[in-house]
Amino acid sequence: MLQVGVIGTGMIGQDHIRRMTSVLAGVRVTAVADVDPAVAFRTGERIGATVFATGEELIASSGVDAVVVCSWGPTHEQYVLAAIAAGKPVFCEKPLATTQEACLRILEAEAAHGSRLVQVGYMRRYDASYRALKSVLGTGQIGAPLMMHCAHRNASVPGFYEKEMAITDTAVHEIDMVRWMFDDEITAVRVLTPRRSSLGGDLQDPLMLLFELSSGVLVDVETSVNIRYGYDIRGEIVGEEGTAALGSLSPVHVRRAGLSADPVPADWRERFLAAYDVEFQEWIDALRSGGRPVGPSAWDGYAAAVVSDAGVLALRSGERVPVVLAERPKLYGMEVAA
Amino acid sequence: MLQVGVIGTGMIGQDHIRRMTSVLAGVRVTAVADVDPAVAFRTGERIGATVFATGEELIASSGVDAVVVCSWGPTHEQYVLAAIAAGKPVFCEKPLATTQEACLRILEAEAAHGSRLVQVGYMRRYDASYRALKSVLGTGQIGAPLMMHCAHRNASVPGFYEKEMAITDTAVHEIDMVRWMFDDEITAVRVLTPRRSSLGGDLQDPLMLLFELSSGVLVDVETSVNIRYGYDIRGEIVGEEGTAALGSLSPVHVRRAGLSADPVPADWRERFLAAYDVEFQEWIDALRSGGRPVGPSAWDGYAAAVVSDAGVLALRSGERVPVVLAERPKLYGMEVAA
Amino acid sequence: MLQVGVIGTGMIGQDHIRRMTSVLAGVRVTAVADVDPAVAFRTGERIGATVFATGEELIASSGVDAVVVCSWGPTHEQYVLAAIAAGKPVFCEKPLATTQEACLRILEAEAAHGSRLVQVGYMRRYDASYRALKSVLGTGQIGAPLMMHCAHRNASVPGFYEKEMAITDTAVHEIDMVRWMFDDEITAVRVLTPRRSSLGGDLQDPLMLLFELSSGVLVDVETSVNIRYGYDIRGEIVGEEGTAALGSLSPVHVRRAGLSADPVPADWRERFLAAYDVEFQEWIDALRSGGRPVGPSAWDGYAAAVVSDAGVLALRSGERVPVVLAERPKLYGMEVAA
Amino acid sequence: MLQVGVIGTGMIGQDHIRRMTSVLAGVRVTAVADVDPAVAFRTGERIGATVFATGEELIASSGVDAVVVCSWGPTHEQYVLAAIAAGKPVFCEKPLATTQEACLRILEAEAAHGSRLVQVGYMRRYDASYRALKSVLGTGQIGAPLMMHCAHRNASVPGFYEKEMAITDTAVHEIDMVRWMFDDEITAVRVLTPRRSSLGGDLQDPLMLLFELSSGVLVDVETSVNIRYGYDIRGEIVGEEGTAALGSLSPVHVRRAGLSADPVPADWRERFLAAYDVEFQEWIDALRSGGRPVGPSAWDGYAAAVVSDAGVLALRSGERVPVVLAERPKLYGMEVAA
Repeated sequence: MLQVGVIGTGMIGQDHIRRMTSVLAGVRVTAVADVDPAVAFRTGERIGATVFATGEELIASSGVDAVVVCSWGPTHEQYVLAAIAAGKPVFCEKPLATTQEACLRILEAEAAHGSRLVQVGYMRRYDASYRALKSVLGTGQIGAPLMMHCAHRNASVPGFYEKEMAITDTAVHEIDMVRWMFDDEITAVRVLTPRRSSLGGDLQDPLMLLFELSSGVLVDVETSVNIRYGYDIRGEIVGEEGTAALGSLSPVHVRRAGLSADPVPADWRERFLAAYDVEFQEWIDALRSGGRPVGPSAWDGYAAAVVSDAGVLALRSGERVPVVLAERPKLYGMEVAA
Repeated sequence: MLQVGVIGTGMIGQDHIRRMTSVLAGVRVTAVADVDPAVAFRTGERIGATVFATGEELIASSGVDAVVVCSWGPTHEQYVLAAIAAGKPVFCEKPLATTQEACLRILEAEAAHGSRLVQVGYMRRYDASYRALKSVLGTGQIGAPLMMHCAHRNASVPGFYEKEMAITDTAVHEIDMVRWMFDDEITAVRVLTPRRSSLGGDLQDPLMLLFELSSGVLVDVETSVNIRYGYDIRGEIVGEEGTAALGSLSPVHVRRAGLSADPVPADWRERFLAAYDVEFQEWIDALRSGGRPVGPSAWDGYAAAVVSDAGVLALRSGERVPVVLAERPKLYGMEVAA
Repeated sequence: MLQVGVIGTGMIGQDHIRRMTSVLAGVRVTAVADVDPAVAFRTGERIGATVFATGEELIASSGVDAVVVCSWGPTHEQYVLAAIAAGKPVFCEKPLATTQEACLRILEAEAAHGSRLVQVGYMRRYDASYRALKSVLGTGQIGAPLMMHCAHRNASVPGFYEKEMAITDTAVHEIDMVRWMFDDEITAVRVLTPRRSSLGGDLQDPLMLLFELSSGVLVDVETSVNIRYGYDIRGEIVGEEGTAALGSLSPVHVRRAGLSADPVPADWRERFLAAYDVEFQEWIDALRSGGRPVGPSAWDGYAAAVVSDAGVLALRSGERVPVVLAERPKLYGMEVAA
Repeated sequence: MLQVGVIGTGMIGQDHIRRMTSVLAGVRVTAVADVDPAVAFRTGERIGATVFATGEELIASSGVDAVVVCSWGPTHEQYVLAAIAAGKPVFCEKPLATTQEACLRILEAEAAHGSRLVQVGYMRRYDASYRALKSVLGTGQIGAPLMMHCAHRNASVPGFYEKEMAITDTAVHEIDMVRWMFDDEITAVRVLTPRRSSLGGDLQDPLMLLFELSSGVLVDVETSVNIRYGYDIRGEIVGEEGTAALGSLSPVHVRRAGLSADPVPADWRERFLAAYDVEFQEWIDALRSGGRPVGPSAWDGYAAAVVSDAGVLALRSGERVPVVLAERPKLYGMEVAA
């Protein structure tokens, strides 16, 4: 039974606590900490976990085998570094850290430790559809990949959502996904700005992102974050001899009122619910059986940060922006979950 | 942590042990028994469970809170009765028992006990698609239901599969599903015999079953158990103002070699994997929180047996055969999971 | 240029006149007649055709090479017989005649003439989807056919629509289609009556028809004639190794308001518009090139009448009703268009 | 009956002759001419048309009401100018002419004539799916358009196909289609070059074209001309509140051998067969009823040439290339068929 401490008991932290408490096997949440002690206390009481005043104390506790970081983004670096210093595996929700420099500090710390401890929460790698897509690609049945068309659509976004977040919060999922899908790095980014939706207020919405991979594969990503009709994730890989696309996943098909229709999910929770479960179960299983996380690595978190930064620059400048990564430490192969 | 004893460690038993050991939360397999002591021993050793020489001893053990029966069909009755006698919840794989009379004995024992202990393993009630279908029906958006068209197709069946098994083993899933879907009882059965597939040897394959419900809803079920192309489950409810059908659940869509195609699952394991997980998790959660199973009841198991028997008679006679159920004990409402 | 005389200038007659005047090649409507002389006169004036007081006079005219009969059903026999007597090809809208006896008189007259003159207006044989289905069947890629599932749904029907018309007017299209699809005769009919839709007034709606073919193929047909959501025609053939179904024919797919949807046609005109064009073009081309119609024959019209009558009896009696056909004259092979 | 003379009796010319001879109403091919007199002679003999030694003589003939130009591209200008000089309507297969300058000369000649005589053969405007898409857009149900995603895929291309033809011959259909779809002009073009398919020899295949419209709508077009699996045309408009896409048009759906599949058309003939028929029928009807063509105009032909040239420059330079059109003569509104 893996004993996990959770730092950050807000919405996403509570969801992961629920998952580790009442859905998954082989795990127990033994410790919690939060910037708001009252929330941490109520949570600890409810699930029978020890409450710590700080993340650092939680990490140090002998009752904690592994750490899950769900706190505010700017605090990720300190907790991840503390976990590495303690030699404990740490699952960090995205982003790994809020700057490239902070990510590099984590890479250095982990390299100094000498083996992987960090996993970053990019859940699409655990989605059955993306995995089926990668599997089809691997069989060679569509030939070598040449392009990928993606769309990432949200019905709406909250009021604090800013222009750059279409890249740093929304398209960042595609950034990680394509790196994993093609076992390759993104080498340049362009961002085009179509006619602006009147439903997005001041936002530049939608965007069209174009990623070049080192193999020459070209990826286009539409982000539409106010499209009203629902949450819709699309992806089609164009190979030399055929294409492979994310399939249809509608549990029910209804014919009424002149339409033959599938319902569209309302939001990402509905669409990726199972992926989160698989992500955590595989993380737990890996730690219980061998001690090493095999999902998205600190390098993946760093690369996502660098590509996101290039994307923001591309959006602001209107230019093609090259992506320049540090040399990859030997510790990191291209990490591939499953 | 619910402590479960598993009687029968064959293929399905091993799968449920795997599920309760490495997939689901809140449960531990503490005891096993099997007609083959060597298999039981190896299993117990692997998962750290106590091995019992007989199912009855396992049921009596203080280390067992609840029992899962996965043994050979003809032994179900004795273990279910023993569990009821011990006052312990028991999950019995289908069939509840191999005769109507045996099912009635279980109903009487449970009624004598005074509250529900038995749940029968009809997993379709836990499938996301069937649940979505039932949910659409409940909203009234397609009006009152009038008909349902079903198909139950297997790529192939093992050599020991006999003619009647298309009803007792295959269509029995539709029998339970339609009773649950419409909260209604089947009142008559017809079985028509189309042209016989040359791929099914001596089998009368396919069959066309027709179920009349007490509300007048008419259900047709095609069973095709040698159809080669894969495992395919179809269902469409025809309402007054529209229809609702099981949706498309293909994770990936591939265009190659002149076709735009979804892969078809090879067998039921792939199609209903998640349903089994949900079935057990809900059973575990119900026992942990309140002590009562809420899934398919002994009454449901009995009704399935009576309708199956009517189906077999209808197949042999070519006639419409009425379904005559015993009076339903007060203990059983029409049980509906979720 | 084929010179055609049209008897009956009501709705369907006007549609065929429009087709032969402004859509199809190689044809001219040179003569019209109608029970209402004013309508005939206005039509003749508009398109420049001679107006005849009676169908018989039109048939006799030297300016008429071939006859199209679109008049009231009970008058079909007399015009078809008159055309045969005149040795002129005649396209008769369904039904060929309103009784089996009348159909037999036509068969006799045509046999006496010694070659085919009559074609009956069953347009589904000319629909691209049904033809693709028959073509797939012919390749053997799904193995020998065993069953076919059909649905025939109308949003609503006019006030004069009576119970039996679900068979004689609606399912009669499936009757002809399955005979053609499988090159086979229907040997028995059952009609089951599900729970009645509250939207159909006194009608017994829907119905479930079951046709047995001499090969053993079993065909089920749902007729739902008040289903509100639109006009929907479904068909799936179950073969030994796979299935083939009418495909999706939606020109556009719209995602909005929580749904990912195809529009459903409002009525049969929209669904079978192209089939009517092909039906007439092939009839015209056959007459222009060789003089013999090759579409649905008088025998097909007769067989449809016999099966319809059996269906009505099956509906009234609740019994399985055998279909007994007269001996097929040598003149008629199983006629297959395309 | 419209009397048409066809200049150029190669593959496409023969197909249009077949169409006007045996498919469409109200038209007769009375004259033919071809650079190869033997081909012209055989064609004329077969269909009973006068054979002319030159296109100019054909145009001058009193037995020719309207001209169809299907000759080699470089000859289009001279025949279109000759038809304008003769005051006769002329349908010119794409391209209108091979240079912008030649197109401008045609615009001037037509303007001098004072009314439209020229129609250019862009058949997608007549395809039922594109029309349905435009119709959905017009209803406002998906809000204002913001982006459009397109793909244009060929199984293979002939040996003489050169790199630029992916723009001038292939994507030119999308160029005309988007101008018509959005009633708008393209203002700039980018062409990106993904990883090259090993199946395309020296070709730069696939390409990713990006069109900016004056409204700000951004259109991306994938051209893949060696993709083996078939001919596939895709289009999805992203609006403010939803999307509308070209629908599924498969006549049949086959489940066999582990796949649930729609066949893909082999080539454009199969996909756009009906569109060509509609295109010509509407042209014929327009000329017969009023004398003016209403389909793609000389201006549309000119604009396609300018955008194509910009695309070729964008491909060669790797830069964003603005599209600069001459002032539009008053004669041309934005022409929209249906």
